[in-house]
Amino acid sequence: MMTTQMAGRALVYLEDLQPGQIYRSSVDPVSVTADGIKAYARQFDPQPSHLDEVAASKTLFGGLVASGWHTAAMTALLLVDGGLPLAGGLVGAGVEDMRWPRPVRPGDRLRVESEVLEVRPSRSRPQQGIAKIRTTTLNQNDEPVQIMTSNLIVQRRGAEAGPVA
Amino acid sequence: MMTTQMAGRALVYLEDLQPGQIYRSSVDPVSVTADGIKAYARQFDPQPSHLDEVAASKTLFGGLVASGWHTAAMTALLLVDGGLPLAGGLVGAGVEDMRWPRPVRPGDRLRVESEVLEVRPSRSRPQQGIAKIRTTTLNQNDEPVQIMTSNLIVQRRGAEAGPVA
Repeated sequence: MMTTQMAGRALVYLEDLQPGQIYRSSVDPVSVTADGIKAYARQFDPQPSHLDEVAASKTLFGGLVASGWHTAAMTALLLVDGGLPLAGGLVGAGVEDMRWPRPVRPGDRLRVESEVLEVRPSRSRPQQGIAKIRTTTLNQNDEPVQIMTSNLIVQRRGAEAGPVA
Repeated sequence: MMTTQMAGRALVYLEDLQPGQIYRSSVDPVSVTADGIKAYARQFDPQPSHLDEVAASKTLFGGLVASGWHTAAMTALLLVDGGLPLAGGLVGAGVEDMRWPRPVRPGDRLRVESEVLEVRPSRSRPQQGIAKIRTTTLNQNDEPVQIMTSNLIVQRRGAEAGPVA
């Protein structure tokens, strides 16, 4: 089975990845809305800065801002839908570093850029390897709102047995 | 304004934190359901392992599992609702490391434990400091499903001017 979002895009295997390569999201930017920020916050991060404009205006952010975990989630969506067309899907082995250099506010439009930093085959699992990727989430002014370095499990060519993720 | 979830709990300031302290979530565990896993995935991480039992059974996970970003979100909820009663709320300066040592499946019940690793006052902002915290998310068998080391911005006592977050 092939995930829908990959249809029409060339799948990328471990052998295709090289340090320095940059993948940019091929889908429309994600539009951030006040309602979306609040809905996420009610479910997962119910703090004043994410829940209500008036309460948020009294915080250090000076207004409503998205939860960092919401920004991470929107980044995941951009990556899955059109950021990194990895064969087998996106499976994170872990995150090495994640920062939110500036807040995400209603009206922002987010996109992602992923740079390949390192590629290494797995010794114990010859059918796969690990790619270290730095994914930068950018707003409509090309300002980074999240910078994340993560290690992804990537299939080697010929090792297919359906989706990993 | 005080956030609702902190009512009745003693607020913690930078001066109260010391390396080695452990805070455990004081609220009921979060119950993970198949519907919750799929709803999150449809919105933010639409991959077969998170969307559908049959498709998920063919992935390396062998069944439906929560997105790692969903686990991070449930962890945030546990922390905000009753994990770390920081004065001013929970404001992340960044994540240094985050891993998902085992999958989260339907029926799991999650709780958090946070250990204070380091505490340092800010030089440039005397009213606050940074605490390095390792938060472990555990399932009903006390097995870690997420281990995250993050740096949080924490208010100093007497520096209150409403919630930070």
